[in-house]
Amino acid sequence: MLKRPSILVLGAGYGGLMTIVNLQKVLGTDAADITLINKNEYHYESTWLHEAAAGTMLPEEVRYDIQEVIDSVKTRFVQATVEEIDVVGKRVLTDNGEYTYDYLVIGLGFEGETFGIEGLDKYALSIANVKAARYIREHIEYQFATWSTEPIKDDSRLTIVVGGAGFTGIEFLGELANRVPELCKEFDVPREKVRVICVEAAPMVLPGFDPELVNYAVGHLEAKGIEFSIGTPVVEATPEGVKIKKADDQFEFIKAGTVVWAAGVRGSSVLEASQIESMRARVKVEKDLRAPGFPDVFIVGDCALMINEETNRPYPPTAQIAMQQGETIAKNINALIKGEDTATFVPDLKGTVCSLGEDDAIGVVFGKKVTGKRASFMKKMIDNRALFMVGGAKLVMKKGKFNVI
Amino acid sequence: MLKRPSILVLGAGYGGLMTIVNLQKVLGTDAADITLINKNEYHYESTWLHEAAAGTMLPEEVRYDIQEVIDSVKTRFVQATVEEIDVVGKRVLTDNGEYTYDYLVIGLGFEGETFGIEGLDKYALSIANVKAARYIREHIEYQFATWSTEPIKDDSRLTIVVGGAGFTGIEFLGELANRVPELCKEFDVPREKVRVICVEAAPMVLPGFDPELVNYAVGHLEAKGIEFSIGTPVVEATPEGVKIKKADDQFEFIKAGTVVWAAGVRGSSVLEASQIESMRARVKVEKDLRAPGFPDVFIVGDCALMINEETNRPYPPTAQIAMQQGETIAKNINALIKGEDTATFVPDLKGTVCSLGEDDAIGVVFGKKVTGKRASFMKKMIDNRALFMVGGAKLVMKKGKFNVI
Repeated sequence: MLKRPSILVLGAGYGGLMTIVNLQKVLGTDAADITLINKNEYHYESTWLHEAAAGTMLPEEVRYDIQEVIDSVKTRFVQATVEEIDVVGKRVLTDNGEYTYDYLVIGLGFEGETFGIEGLDKYALSIANVKAARYIREHIEYQFATWSTEPIKDDSRLTIVVGGAGFTGIEFLGELANRVPELCKEFDVPREKVRVICVEAAPMVLPGFDPELVNYAVGHLEAKGIEFSIGTPVVEATPEGVKIKKADDQFEFIKAGTVVWAAGVRGSSVLEASQIESMRARVKVEKDLRAPGFPDVFIVGDCALMINEETNRPYPPTAQIAMQQGETIAKNINALIKGEDTATFVPDLKGTVCSLGEDDAIGVVFGKKVTGKRASFMKKMIDNRALFMVGGAKLVMKKGKFNVI
Repeated sequence: MLKRPSILVLGAGYGGLMTIVNLQKVLGTDAADITLINKNEYHYESTWLHEAAAGTMLPEEVRYDIQEVIDSVKTRFVQATVEEIDVVGKRVLTDNGEYTYDYLVIGLGFEGETFGIEGLDKYALSIANVKAARYIREHIEYQFATWSTEPIKDDSRLTIVVGGAGFTGIEFLGELANRVPELCKEFDVPREKVRVICVEAAPMVLPGFDPELVNYAVGHLEAKGIEFSIGTPVVEATPEGVKIKKADDQFEFIKAGTVVWAAGVRGSSVLEASQIESMRARVKVEKDLRAPGFPDVFIVGDCALMINEETNRPYPPTAQIAMQQGETIAKNINALIKGEDTATFVPDLKGTVCSLGEDDAIGVVFGKKVTGKRASFMKKMIDNRALFMVGGAKLVMKKGKFNVI
């Protein structure tokens, strides 16, 4: 009797979970042993973290128990932190034991990238996971509460610097634009005392987006009191704030009680330390999503680097693509088990919507530009669709976004 | 034509507001000019502050706009901080101008009393007002959020020392007992990591309460994980925690991320600096609630000291007594305007209930001991009754406590 192949999935993000859900679907009963390893007992919506960080959503709302969406008969779940991946020895070391595999799926997500800028790793906060997002919310509230009680007011407590005007930075600014008036009311702080400043090194906001949409976004945020400092790289972070470069030999120090760095992501450092070749901790995958040189290893989500041949640029690390990859990987593992050919992954880009807060957004959906409430509605439907694909209607009912206009 | 007398009421606490509400009732139309001066545009329920500090109620829930409950035709409201009271010159200096009066009512509330213990004023938090309570809530949450994200855990962040086992201390502990499990869930902190320790200098808990009720309260709180250190005075507070005296020459240092001092109150320091004689910033009032030697000045609430002749001890500074005093003061001012005799204030003690959290309490109501849900229900009805007396049914509907079993 042949031993059943063992499949090991690392990470329960969008990619890992979609791999599991689809493996459960495509594999015959008892066709394989499936194990899912994840650091936490919960999955979190990494595309919603900026809302938890701003305080417009509760941390509880952005996560759900993994056990709720996997089939515990078909998949064994292990809560453990992955410490080392040995793709030559075909084993994975965790803080909760060692695991071997016949097929490995690596979906360990992203980490913040500080580009070696002095002090950033120490003094800037990063929207990296649920705990970090929750910390940012509490940090900002604490600054407001402290200002409200201190006898000699330090107004710089109420200054929030957001590093980065990319997708995450802009979505976070959108939430802050809604949250700041609430915070002012809650903590008896005059609105004019609060500054929110977006600092971006590149000469533009939201690179890759249609200029008309970008103008809409910037106008919307500026109208809500957000300041922009574009083309001015952060050169240093200190406990008091950030130093930015305004021109050659011209610098400015922005004193700020809160600095959030949202300007770059990279893949997983555990993956980077493995024998697989990577760039900024991401692996340039084969067409069937396998790691070059390791035909039993698949990479999914933010750890996978794929070039869009039309634009000759990498696809952005989105939940949409990660989930589609998970579907393909499940099919390809099934094919390998059966001795069939693997399929090429073809992303099906339905569009991208960047939220600007509660009821506004910009984006391109099925090739058409959308703005305002319509875009915001679509954003919520995209979020709900992702829930549906992982956990069906039940999960949408439980975690879906229905505060639509 | 005779000039209308002017009545100046300082402070919109229970006593001040009840004075205003009753003045509006008893005085004939245009019989006097009434001015109310208060630091904030809102009144807050000082007997609910421990709930805002623990985080079991929102700060918004414990306060309401003064304009909602006063008659703006009859009473002029001025938002200002009282800086000096000159009862000889009959004028009051504020940060928003000078005010004169024919009749003055001083209801400036309480301040924390640290008895000169080293470091307490600097490193311990006090449940003194809405902002301070809100700060305590945020401070505790921030400790939990920080513990949850820091790589090397400092468990003392999760230790909360409550100084004082009197009424406020015990009510605050009751709320913490409910709140701590919620915080653990919200911030992914194991319950056993959290310590809540009540430190009391006196050899007993809740002095003046029936011993059977005190045993009930301590047993209830201990069952929820609250620790008690009784008969052990705090001798020093530092940024790291408190030093307590366990016996002669025997000290212990409790490392704690949060120290809340709930062990003593005194009257108003502005009143203390005036020409009126006071003890711990409270004025031993005449039988008709006037200040000795100043027949046009009344004292109400926590600033008034009254001896209970039955027990030969001062009446406790409660909302119940403050509100009854406000009623008497309004009648007595009306009597003075009309040239009639003032009435003696006779407190009507309906009972005292000490909350032990959401659905438990102990107390004596109309001479009968009550505990548990029944006592908790009565506590909520007492709170609602106070709202009713100030703002009628409308305010009860808006701010009342109806989460009864």
